[in-house]
Amino acid sequence: MSKGTSTKPPSGMRDFLAPDVVQRRHVLGVVQRVYESFGFVPLETPTIENLGTLLGKYGPEGDQLLYRLLHRRDKLKRAIAGGADQPGGLTEQDLAAEGLRYDLTVPLARVVANYKDLPAFYKRYQIQPVWRADRPARGRFREFYQCDVDVTGTASLVADAEVCCAVATVLRELGFADFKILTNHRELLRALVADAGIPAEQESLALIALDKLDKLGGDGVKDELGEKGIAAERADALLSKLEQMRAPGALERLAEGDGPGARGAAELLELFGYAAHGQAAEHATFDPTLARGLSYYTGPIFEIQVDGLAGSLGGGGRYDNLIGMFQKQQVPAVGFSLGLERVLLVMEERQMFPELGIGPQVLLCRMGDVPASAAISVASALRAAGARVEVYADAAPMKKQLSYANSLEVAFAAILGPQEVADGTVSLKDLRTGQQESCMISEAARKVQD
Amino acid sequence: MSKGTSTKPPSGMRDFLAPDVVQRRHVLGVVQRVYESFGFVPLETPTIENLGTLLGKYGPEGDQLLYRLLHRRDKLKRAIAGGADQPGGLTEQDLAAEGLRYDLTVPLARVVANYKDLPAFYKRYQIQPVWRADRPARGRFREFYQCDVDVTGTASLVADAEVCCAVATVLRELGFADFKILTNHRELLRALVADAGIPAEQESLALIALDKLDKLGGDGVKDELGEKGIAAERADALLSKLEQMRAPGALERLAEGDGPGARGAAELLELFGYAAHGQAAEHATFDPTLARGLSYYTGPIFEIQVDGLAGSLGGGGRYDNLIGMFQKQQVPAVGFSLGLERVLLVMEERQMFPELGIGPQVLLCRMGDVPASAAISVASALRAAGARVEVYADAAPMKKQLSYANSLEVAFAAILGPQEVADGTVSLKDLRTGQQESCMISEAARKVQD
Repeated sequence: MSKGTSTKPPSGMRDFLAPDVVQRRHVLGVVQRVYESFGFVPLETPTIENLGTLLGKYGPEGDQLLYRLLHRRDKLKRAIAGGADQPGGLTEQDLAAEGLRYDLTVPLARVVANYKDLPAFYKRYQIQPVWRADRPARGRFREFYQCDVDVTGTASLVADAEVCCAVATVLRELGFADFKILTNHRELLRALVADAGIPAEQESLALIALDKLDKLGGDGVKDELGEKGIAAERADALLSKLEQMRAPGALERLAEGDGPGARGAAELLELFGYAAHGQAAEHATFDPTLARGLSYYTGPIFEIQVDGLAGSLGGGGRYDNLIGMFQKQQVPAVGFSLGLERVLLVMEERQMFPELGIGPQVLLCRMGDVPASAAISVASALRAAGARVEVYADAAPMKKQLSYANSLEVAFAAILGPQEVADGTVSLKDLRTGQQESCMISEAARKVQD
Repeated sequence: MSKGTSTKPPSGMRDFLAPDVVQRRHVLGVVQRVYESFGFVPLETPTIENLGTLLGKYGPEGDQLLYRLLHRRDKLKRAIAGGADQPGGLTEQDLAAEGLRYDLTVPLARVVANYKDLPAFYKRYQIQPVWRADRPARGRFREFYQCDVDVTGTASLVADAEVCCAVATVLRELGFADFKILTNHRELLRALVADAGIPAEQESLALIALDKLDKLGGDGVKDELGEKGIAAERADALLSKLEQMRAPGALERLAEGDGPGARGAAELLELFGYAAHGQAAEHATFDPTLARGLSYYTGPIFEIQVDGLAGSLGGGGRYDNLIGMFQKQQVPAVGFSLGLERVLLVMEERQMFPELGIGPQVLLCRMGDVPASAAISVASALRAAGARVEVYADAAPMKKQLSYANSLEVAFAAILGPQEVADGTVSLKDLRTGQQESCMISEAARKVQD
C-alpha cells in the first residue's frame, strides 16, 4: 500500500458508479433528442485550449478560476531558469501556456472563427464537461457538465426565442413544470446603471455585484458596490430604479420612449412575443435585476429558476462581440446552457427518475462437472439473442453462485448441469419467485428480456 | 482581433464537427451495447486525478507523459518562494499535485480500493478520453478515447476469455473480420528473458525494447537492448528463443515441462480453450514476441492487430498486483482497452460506416408577410410530432431561404404563406425532386421523417 495515496477523487470531483451514470445518460439522452429536434447539430471540442483562447473572456474572476497545465520538461526548465532573473520572479504565465475548458461558449467562438465552411446560421449543441478551480459547495463541483445550444450568424430575436424554447422543452420532457426563465437585457441594465449616475468604467463591476442580488440581498449588494468604490446614494438609486421596473407596464412604457433603454425594452417585448408561441410560453418572465456574471453578454440574458434551488439550472444570453475577438469580422450569436449537475440534483430530490435498467439480466452458473467452455458457449448464444449475461467466473459451489446472483440483484440465474449441456438447454431460475424451469436457449433469452 | 490568438485547437487535439461526432457515436453505441451484453456496468471517473494516484504505475516513460496541473494562486506562490532556496531549484513536483487521467485502468484500481460495496466480481466498462503529452503522429493524439472492459476479483481465466470475446464481438459487429488478438503471457516472457541470461533487474527494460519489435525489427531491438546495457549475445539469445517459440507445438511442450515458463504456457492453452467457444474463436493467436509497454501486467497480455495499420486497435492483459498499490489486499484483475481513434481511422479508410442521419430534416421558411411567431408555432407542432426542424431565423426573400436550405442539404423546406397560416397547413417542398404540396402539419411531420 503506497503511503499517503488517497483512494478518493480530488476535491470537487466525483466518481460515477453505474446507477449515477445511468441517471446522467437518461437526462443527456433527452437533452440530445430535444436539441436535435430544434435542428441543432453536435460539436465536441478538446478539453485543453491554449490559454490565449481562454484568458480575457470571462472577466477577472473567471481568469482566476482557470485550470492551467504545467509546461513540460525542457520548456519548464527554461521557464524556471529564465524566471530566476526576472524582477518579479516566476508567474503563472511563465509556467503554463494551456488550460482546461472553462465553458463551451468560448470554444464555440474559436470554432466559428476557424472553420469557414460552417452554415451561415450555425446551430450547434455541445454536451461536455468544463472545469473551474472554484470552492466546491452543494451542487457546485470543479468538474461539471454543461449542455449548450447556440445559434451564430443572426441578430434575429427568433434565435433567442428558439434557444429558450429548446431548453424549456428539455425541462418539460424531464418532468419539470414550475421553472421560470428569468429574462433581462444588458442594454437595459446599462441604461439603468448610467441613469443612477454610475460611471461607464464601473459598469461591469456594478453588474457583477448586482448578479449576487438573490444571494446577498439588497444590503449585501450595496455593501459590495461600496467596496468597489460606488457611492451609497448611487447604489440606492440603482436598486430603486430596478425595483421600479417591476411595476406592470414599465417595460412597455420604456420601449415606447426614446431613452437609452428603449431598444433593450423593445427587444425583450419582441422576444416574449415569439416565446409565447413555443414551449417557453409559460416560463419566460421579465426580471429587471437579473445581471449574469460573465462579461461577454451584449443583449438579452436568461437564467432558469426553480423552487427550492439556490442558484440556477442554467443560463445564457446574446453575445454579439465575442466571436470578433477571434477574427476581424463580428458574428452575432446567442446561446443557452443547461447545468447537468443542478438538473440531476433537483430530479433526485423530487424523485423524478423513471425505472432505469442496468447490469446483467441473467447470471450463468455451472455445476462442478460442467466445463467453463460450455458456459461461454451458452453465454454467446444468449447474448447474440439480445440478453445481458454475466458468466460466473470462478469454479464454486452452486449455493455460492446463487447467493452472488442475489447480491447482484439480477433477475434470473441460468444453471448448466451435465443434462442441460447434453440437451442444449438451460435451467432458468427466476430469483424473484424462486421458480425454475428447463428452457431452450432462445426461449431463455426471450424470458430474461421480458 | 486579438493578435497571436490561434483559432486552431492545441497540437495533438481536435475539434469534432457534426459528421465526426456522429461517426464516433455510432462506434461508441456498438461498444456500449456489446459491453453491456457481457454484463459489464458503466463507470466514469474524473478527468483530474491526484498525482500520487498516477505516478509510478506506467513506468518511467509513462510518468514523463503525464499532463500536470499548475498549483493555484497562494499554493503556487509558496512553492515558487520555497523553491528559490532549494539546492536543485524548482521541480515539477513542487509546482503540481494533480494531473490528467492517463488511462482508465489506474482510476479503476483506485475506485476498487475506495468503494467497499462493489460486487465481488466487479465487471465495469468505461468509455472516456485520456491525455498523454506524447509527440502527435498519424492516429496518435494527445487527447483520445479508450473503451475499457475489466473484471476485478477473480484469477479465473474465464474472465480473461470474456474480455477478449467482448472486444472481438464489438469489432465483428462494427464489420471487422480480419483482426487478430495477439496473445502472450508475462511469465513466459520473464522465463525467456531469464533463460537468455538477462538479469532480473534488466527485465522491464528488455520488455520495453521488445515491445517495439514490430516497429523497429530485430536489429532495431538489439540496438535498443544494447543501449540499455544488455550484451549483444544475450539480446541474440533472447530473440532466437522467442523465434523458437513460434514452432508448432512449442507452447504445448513448454506447458508439459516443469520449467519456469510452464505455468504461463498452461494458462495460455486454457485461455485459448475458452476463447474457442466464444466470439474470440477465430481471432486469438499466440504471439511469443508480444510484450506490451505498461509495467503493471502480470499474466496473459493481448493486442489487436489488423492489416494495414501499424500499431494496434487496442490491448490489455492481466494485472494482479495493481489494485494492491492502493490498499493492503491484492485483488486480481484483467482488462482490455479498445482505442476509439484507431478503430475510426481504419473504418474511415475501409469505408465501413453506414449512412448516419444528422441535422434538421426540414427548414421552415416564411413569406415576408408572415410573422415569425407563426413559424415558431408550426415548428413546435412539427417537433412535438418527432421531426427535426430548423426555423429560418432572419427575415429574407424566399429565394435566399431556399438556397440556404439547399446549402444545409436538408431534404425538405416547409413554406408558410398567409394562406397556409389561415388554413393551418404548410407547403412542403421536397428539395430532391422539387415537388411541392400542401399538407396538414401532422402529415408534414410524417413525410419528413420517412
